[in-house]
Amino acid sequence: MTRETATVTAHAPSGPAAPHHPEACTIGVDFGTLSGRAVVVRVRDGAELGAAVHPYRHGVIDEHLPSTGAPLPPDWALQHPEDWCEVLRTAVPAAVAAAGIDPALVIGIGTDFTACTVLPTTPDGTPLALTADWAARPHAWPKLWKHHAAQDQADRINALARARGEKWLARYGGRISAEWQYAKALQVLEEDPAVYAACARWIEAADWIVWQLTGAESRNTCTAGYKGIHQDGGYPSPGFLAGLHPDFADFPATRLEHPLSPLGTRVGSLSGRAARWTGLPEGIAVAAGNVDAHVAAPAAGAVENGRMLAIMGTSTCHVLNGAALAEIPGICGVVDGGIVEGAYGYEAGQSAVGDIFAWWLRQGVPDSYRAEAEASGEDLHQLLTRKAAGQPVGAHGLVALDWLGGNRSPLVDHHLSGVVAGLTLDTRPEDVYRALLESTAYGTRLIVEAFEDGGIPVEEFIVTGGLKKNALLMQIHADVLRRPVSLGTSEQGPALGSAIHAAVAAGAHPDVRSAAAVMGSVHRHAHLPDPARADAYDALYAEYRALHTHFGTGADLLLHRLRRIRNTARRTTAG
Amino acid sequence: MTRETATVTAHAPSGPAAPHHPEACTIGVDFGTLSGRAVVVRVRDGAELGAAVHPYRHGVIDEHLPSTGAPLPPDWALQHPEDWCEVLRTAVPAAVAAAGIDPALVIGIGTDFTACTVLPTTPDGTPLALTADWAARPHAWPKLWKHHAAQDQADRINALARARGEKWLARYGGRISAEWQYAKALQVLEEDPAVYAACARWIEAADWIVWQLTGAESRNTCTAGYKGIHQDGGYPSPGFLAGLHPDFADFPATRLEHPLSPLGTRVGSLSGRAARWTGLPEGIAVAAGNVDAHVAAPAAGAVENGRMLAIMGTSTCHVLNGAALAEIPGICGVVDGGIVEGAYGYEAGQSAVGDIFAWWLRQGVPDSYRAEAEASGEDLHQLLTRKAAGQPVGAHGLVALDWLGGNRSPLVDHHLSGVVAGLTLDTRPEDVYRALLESTAYGTRLIVEAFEDGGIPVEEFIVTGGLKKNALLMQIHADVLRRPVSLGTSEQGPALGSAIHAAVAAGAHPDVRSAAAVMGSVHRHAHLPDPARADAYDALYAEYRALHTHFGTGADLLLHRLRRIRNTARRTTAG
Repeated sequence: MTRETATVTAHAPSGPAAPHHPEACTIGVDFGTLSGRAVVVRVRDGAELGAAVHPYRHGVIDEHLPSTGAPLPPDWALQHPEDWCEVLRTAVPAAVAAAGIDPALVIGIGTDFTACTVLPTTPDGTPLALTADWAARPHAWPKLWKHHAAQDQADRINALARARGEKWLARYGGRISAEWQYAKALQVLEEDPAVYAACARWIEAADWIVWQLTGAESRNTCTAGYKGIHQDGGYPSPGFLAGLHPDFADFPATRLEHPLSPLGTRVGSLSGRAARWTGLPEGIAVAAGNVDAHVAAPAAGAVENGRMLAIMGTSTCHVLNGAALAEIPGICGVVDGGIVEGAYGYEAGQSAVGDIFAWWLRQGVPDSYRAEAEASGEDLHQLLTRKAAGQPVGAHGLVALDWLGGNRSPLVDHHLSGVVAGLTLDTRPEDVYRALLESTAYGTRLIVEAFEDGGIPVEEFIVTGGLKKNALLMQIHADVLRRPVSLGTSEQGPALGSAIHAAVAAGAHPDVRSAAAVMGSVHRHAHLPDPARADAYDALYAEYRALHTHFGTGADLLLHRLRRIRNTARRTTAG
Repeated sequence: MTRETATVTAHAPSGPAAPHHPEACTIGVDFGTLSGRAVVVRVRDGAELGAAVHPYRHGVIDEHLPSTGAPLPPDWALQHPEDWCEVLRTAVPAAVAAAGIDPALVIGIGTDFTACTVLPTTPDGTPLALTADWAARPHAWPKLWKHHAAQDQADRINALARARGEKWLARYGGRISAEWQYAKALQVLEEDPAVYAACARWIEAADWIVWQLTGAESRNTCTAGYKGIHQDGGYPSPGFLAGLHPDFADFPATRLEHPLSPLGTRVGSLSGRAARWTGLPEGIAVAAGNVDAHVAAPAAGAVENGRMLAIMGTSTCHVLNGAALAEIPGICGVVDGGIVEGAYGYEAGQSAVGDIFAWWLRQGVPDSYRAEAEASGEDLHQLLTRKAAGQPVGAHGLVALDWLGGNRSPLVDHHLSGVVAGLTLDTRPEDVYRALLESTAYGTRLIVEAFEDGGIPVEEFIVTGGLKKNALLMQIHADVLRRPVSLGTSEQGPALGSAIHAAVAAGAHPDVRSAAAVMGSVHRHAHLPDPARADAYDALYAEYRALHTHFGTGADLLLHRLRRIRNTARRTTAG
């Protein structure tokens, strides 16, 4: 059903359908890192009727500023707001066309976004990057979630918060990420105060795109909580913020403050302009903004307390609802209503997962394997999987740390790196490959145990995202976790989740839980643990934990020193 | 000059030349792991006139016993005595033919062997393996140096020696290797007492091959000292040996005891039978047996005190003479006159060096690199070297432990394995390759420092063996060691060394030192350290040491546990 977008003649809307029309649909739009994806979903049963993808023209901007061509410093990552609007103008009508429905059947639209992707705007929401005055200034541009140049600011936020005993710090596992709103905003203030002064609103792209749909600003509880340090009804205090920079004291009051909209609520109606862009009926419901990972929970039936959803792709994000508020070291955050109203939403993650496997397939497999794969009509991934799958647990003698992209949970440390231990002259590419798959499962188990140790039960483990198709990886997760692995059914988890939220916003379902029950779907217990393999993995997991402690905790870490040596050496060459 | 052997008509000897004949030659024969190599050397200047190699027909016997086809247990490695004799019958006359000299000019023959390669014989030196009574018994066969199935016996030897405070233990760095005479003999006694009972002589192949040349048993000081625990004029006491097994108490007295011949001495004359085998004049001098690594020292001008010779190939052996007797933890051994008369000869080593690089070239380099190498007309090694050589020190962010074949010095632990730390999604094959090269240089520095810390100065570092041609590896050694690297000139280090010993045995030179001065040669300071790179390597070496301590020392090692898990898993499959 998915098709690439082309110019599509927008259907002339014939007036919106009633929320309980049997063929009523909603549209979910998922704004990813490289593209935006729209899906048309029938609200009575969650059937996905059509979808379309639009790749961003500028992709991830990490080399040159589009307005001037000026080179960007290391670790920067920006995006272009026009790319996002283009998704509304192309992918949405294309999805409707692919579904072959009358646009009048669409009763609502919901969106989700990468986060924290954040931008400075004028008072009316115009991105500073799109103004003549500021377009040439790098700090005027939207900072993508993986803009990692504000680590210094994050370190100072954490140090000061610890020193002052700020209560909110524990809600984020004890550490605020360099990816989030405060570190990025403080970087702007310190490196380009004029841009900071011109910034009237500092807004998540998740909320900005909703503003484009409705014509009015709104702010959602999810990004405000997870990325904006909104806890217990307020933001960090002016006293704390002044300790970072005198001009930062009023940052939330002047640039963030706005009533928060719970997830699944209707925050407005589709404006005339947005109706023209999308070809959808003017006035239909627009749902509150949301984050791609969190919005995937209802799509995979993971909204009840205790159901952990792992969105596994290049990286993994874990979301989980719990009845109680617990402060768990190393998690990304806990937010009241952060995933669904009436529960504490927890988030954790792994910085690199599929990226690690892709790295090994690209770098670590010799040409003899390529030839063997060609001879057997397999691709390299299939060949390696077949060779790795035949091994008894532990036969490769390896254990690896899955930190090739740093560690998000529970160490929140992007300066860590990967380790492989146990190599011998007999070690083969499939051995390392399997050890890397296993390392990500150990990392997941550590996160699951952190939640359970913290008093938040994990009763079911559900996977969605591209890696759910990797049966060996799923089986290793079942064995390592010693629990069944269920699989979200939809191929469009976040976009379906956004459509579910839109259905609630449009009044087709009373709340997200009941909408998820009807529109979401999961293949329960698709992979069951094998007790003998689980026993064998217990021993290897103990070794993983030993490496984890040695390399990941303490005052002066070898991997940090290596990173410093590396960065110094690379600067030497550059200079 | 080297040529493969074929059937060569032996020249009829016309009577041996005088030792000071200007064209007088000696022959050195080097018995390696897979082949034997003979070289004809002129005694007045060390000119290598001809050489020939004969690959052993049975190679390393580690799967099936040749006599019965019975499968061998894991970690066994045997050899066939006939293969060694065949080298005398083929490679020696072929080398003479290649040299184009009159065999009458050959005044002596010297040999060196892998060690500890050891076999049980009848009283007249007939290998039990070649007798009708015992050929079907695996324990009757010569055990190659890398027979690793006597670790249990070695562990007990070490534990008892420590418990009893045996003085000789410290001469071997505190640990007797499973590769050596006592562990292997005790394994025979315990696993096949009938073979042990039938064993009249337990003899190093280094001495056995000399027996075949002269017709009479001799024993050399080198193998007796390094592999036979002969120290301060005697072997371990019956009381100690009885503590291992009651029937082991008289092992040295009954099976080893024999007057020891210093290196370079004439132990006999070429017998009529051996003259017929080799085509050499009957009655010429035969030098005492020797070990391949130690005999290479005079060939590379490394006999003076303080000159460390590293014989670098698949593994590395370090030999060094010192004026004083020091007991240095973790070295392989110190033997009075073990390398040259009048000095304490020290030995240390690294279990795998070239093997590690070959492993990475074979397993770790993707087909895109193969294609790139083909396009640029390089081989894979050249391509990887070029890419790795261009990096500033430390730019790859990696540090590795060079233990893919275990650690010989200073940890004497074959159950260790390799570790690579600092991997990221940007890590490339050449990065790991360079990190592996560096890891072996760090391992060498640790050994050099162990000697210097123990009071044995290392004044010069000389390399011989196949890896001396790897200029990047040599430069890394110069930078890491912060000292010049000199290179032995000969391509046939051990065989030339044996010819030097033969020249002394024949009376052409008064002693090994003066023979080495004339016949050996070295390219002094071929690679000089760069101060800036040396500084950068100091920081990385500190990280290597930190990993070394963490993974290599202590009571319960992670890498040992991984090895046990691996071995259990592999047995499970096999069963």
